Amino acid sequence: MSTTEFDLVVIGGGPGGYVAALRAAQLKLSVAVVEANHLGGICLNWGCIPTKALLRASEINHLLHDLGQFGFAADNPRFDFQKVVARSRAVSKQLSGGVAHLLKKAKVPVFDGFAKLSGVSGKKRKIEVTLKDGAKAVLTATNVILATGARARALPGLEPDGKFVWSYREALVPDELPKRLLVIGSGAIGTEFASFYRNMGSEVTLVEVADRILPVEDEEISKLARTAFEKQGMKVLTSAKVGPLKKGASEVSVDIEAGGKTHSLTFDRVISAVGIVGNVENIGVDGTRIVVEKTHIVTDELCRTGEPGVYAIGDVAGAPWLAHKASHEAVMCVEAIAGRHVHPIDATKIPGCTYCRPQIASVGYTEAKAKAAGYEVRVGRFPFIGNGKAIAMGEVDGLVKTVFDAKTGELLGAHMIGAEVTEMIQGYVIARSGELTEAELKETVFPHPTISESMHEAVLAAYDGALHF
Amino acid sequence: MSTTEFDLVVIGGGPGGYVAALRAAQLKLSVAVVEANHLGGICLNWGCIPTKALLRASEINHLLHDLGQFGFAADNPRFDFQKVVARSRAVSKQLSGGVAHLLKKAKVPVFDGFAKLSGVSGKKRKIEVTLKDGAKAVLTATNVILATGARARALPGLEPDGKFVWSYREALVPDELPKRLLVIGSGAIGTEFASFYRNMGSEVTLVEVADRILPVEDEEISKLARTAFEKQGMKVLTSAKVGPLKKGASEVSVDIEAGGKTHSLTFDRVISAVGIVGNVENIGVDGTRIVVEKTHIVTDELCRTGEPGVYAIGDVAGAPWLAHKASHEAVMCVEAIAGRHVHPIDATKIPGCTYCRPQIASVGYTEAKAKAAGYEVRVGRFPFIGNGKAIAMGEVDGLVKTVFDAKTGELLGAHMIGAEVTEMIQGYVIARSGELTEAELKETVFPHPTISESMHEAVLAAYDGALHF
Repeated sequence: MSTTEFDLVVIGGGPGGYVAALRAAQLKLSVAVVEANHLGGICLNWGCIPTKALLRASEINHLLHDLGQFGFAADNPRFDFQKVVARSRAVSKQLSGGVAHLLKKAKVPVFDGFAKLSGVSGKKRKIEVTLKDGAKAVLTATNVILATGARARALPGLEPDGKFVWSYREALVPDELPKRLLVIGSGAIGTEFASFYRNMGSEVTLVEVADRILPVEDEEISKLARTAFEKQGMKVLTSAKVGPLKKGASEVSVDIEAGGKTHSLTFDRVISAVGIVGNVENIGVDGTRIVVEKTHIVTDELCRTGEPGVYAIGDVAGAPWLAHKASHEAVMCVEAIAGRHVHPIDATKIPGCTYCRPQIASVGYTEAKAKAAGYEVRVGRFPFIGNGKAIAMGEVDGLVKTVFDAKTGELLGAHMIGAEVTEMIQGYVIARSGELTEAELKETVFPHPTISESMHEAVLAAYDGALHF
Repeated sequence: MSTTEFDLVVIGGGPGGYVAALRAAQLKLSVAVVEANHLGGICLNWGCIPTKALLRASEINHLLHDLGQFGFAADNPRFDFQKVVARSRAVSKQLSGGVAHLLKKAKVPVFDGFAKLSGVSGKKRKIEVTLKDGAKAVLTATNVILATGARARALPGLEPDGKFVWSYREALVPDELPKRLLVIGSGAIGTEFASFYRNMGSEVTLVEVADRILPVEDEEISKLARTAFEKQGMKVLTSAKVGPLKKGASEVSVDIEAGGKTHSLTFDRVISAVGIVGNVENIGVDGTRIVVEKTHIVTDELCRTGEPGVYAIGDVAGAPWLAHKASHEAVMCVEAIAGRHVHPIDATKIPGCTYCRPQIASVGYTEAKAKAAGYEVRVGRFPFIGNGKAIAMGEVDGLVKTVFDAKTGELLGAHMIGAEVTEMIQGYVIARSGELTEAELKETVFPHPTISESMHEAVLAAYDGALHF
């Protein structure tokens, strides 16, 4: 057993954990990371990154079957599904290796093992690490950041079974393309897989218990997404209740109640994407003042738990379950530890993206939430069909919707669906970050010809009216 | 001869002119447009829009020859060059028709003819219009906006000749793909054509009289663009002097001096893209207080000419020759006419985009210009190779560079090269519009995984250091 002292020990090497360590090293804190599985966490290894590599593949597949409109042709367009999957894995591996490299360059020790808070020793906290080879190490630190992440929620009867039922993990490394696929849950994860598999050629049914898909998005966006998916041949069932899976030798049958009807359907594979649960087990929070509610650690606006010097960030600290929320909390938390003045994170300034086709991106209040919060709103809309670049690119399905505070002109929220919106939303996030109003956005000169001009028009539309519609 | 009275007559139906008319109609001014050629001007018909349709084609052609890395394959990938060109023309036609529709919907009369200022009548200005059928009309208006645009500069010996030498017009409607193409001038127009034709398969030589291509961009961006183009097999000659064209029966020979050597080269076609001249002839400015300098109308910061009630906007009013500068001036000018309070346009807040592969986008001061203006600067850089989404998309060639005022933290400029940067630059433009500093940009939560995270890292890089590099 070795003992090592640090200013900070970060438990978990995902985007929250490793960013915390890198920032701590920049600020000259002595810091270590303990990671039980793989650096980069779910995000790099089983989430954001490999799915984006798959998204690229599905975009290419779509384009290869739509070459004619651009004056192109090719015979026998095809893909090697295992190569597509292998590329996705290679991208993950490259990035996970990149994180290891960054930590090494920053001289941050990484302990490959499972960490547990184990009391205090003087003014220091003890962290017991069970290393991968079974050996134990005890670290001590003035501060501990819990960044243990989360995992897929497994509903009874929908547990991954190594054959028919997949969580995101199995869905990322399929043996073959399923012919008939059921996706249960239409949050970002379920929707991205539904879109990927549909664009690669699977028959996909997407079911959602709520009355619309992507239920955290603005209602209009949900509706447009559904229309687009159905146009692509996806079957979408909302307000749906999925009955027990009846597993056969090579397929799964299930009754799904939706719209007053029972749909008796048969599938080759089922993806369960019904939410996530925080990794709070066996990390030593029992018997401390750290509070766990619904599998998540309760924190204040500066990511502090009930135990002095112990912080929780990222997925384990609750929604929104987004890597950029985790890494931003990481930076804030470490800067506070280093004595810098920090600002609490405002959830209404955190964007969310869904990498389906068409892409979806949003930040801040939906129209309904703004009204529910008591705002009098002005709403602007601009469809891509009024945008020259979108027409030139052959990407005319899309909408930008803005929600302003009618009294102050503050941009409360923005909601986008269409090509490239995941890269465009940051403009509105910057606007919310700077608390800009319609006046500054109106004055902003958006470059022509870009799809981003739609962002300008959607601002104008909320006031004097769009120019190009 | 008919006479019609208006609050405002706009001469020119390009992006400056038609936007001025639409905004005027929104503000309940009586307004008419006179357009001599086609609504939408060069931008929609012979510039921004059709070139973007071609850009899409060249991106597709590149991808079709790079399918293997994504796990895809297709036999005999090919294009019908005339279909590619026809699609580009169809997109232009659709958008030009869209402008006609918008003006009709806004009840703005459009006169198809050539307009000329012809003195005053009481408090009104007279505009004489020679209609396309030869008939004359006289309009009167309290205010006139000159938005007559510009055209390609034809250097002696480099005039379009209907065969070997093309301006942008001929380059947009080629009969066939030239095997060997010389592009003279590496501003946005020349560079875009060089990139398009190279990606479609032509052997392209790009020559520039300055010591680097894209000379208005930051030097680092010019250098990276050159490296990328050369990697794609383009020949680039800078500090180059092009000798007289020796035209043969089916090809053109020319001596180009560059780097102390004389390159004797032979081409099938030559594109001349050596700048533009304003359309100031025969529009009735002679004998008025309207000043013309170097083919452009001199205006003040509110687009006013020397004649009360006469404004000039867009290309005819000088650099930067960008459609979004024209349309923004249009809105400002019309709002001033309508009695609204307006802000002069700050050229350092106008972005510029070049739609080559890789794309280029920038706003504000280059590092060199900031220093020349007396700023003490902090500079940040972040390469796409440190960005997860870029890796997942297979788009790792790119850089984001930021220039901050070291004293105040104000973002002075941003310079980008790589995939999707033309859609991303608006975030930095919004930041400059709101006069945001590194503090607000650092606090901004950029969504993960997006290439736009590189914009955040490039801010961090100018201060405490990027996290992922």
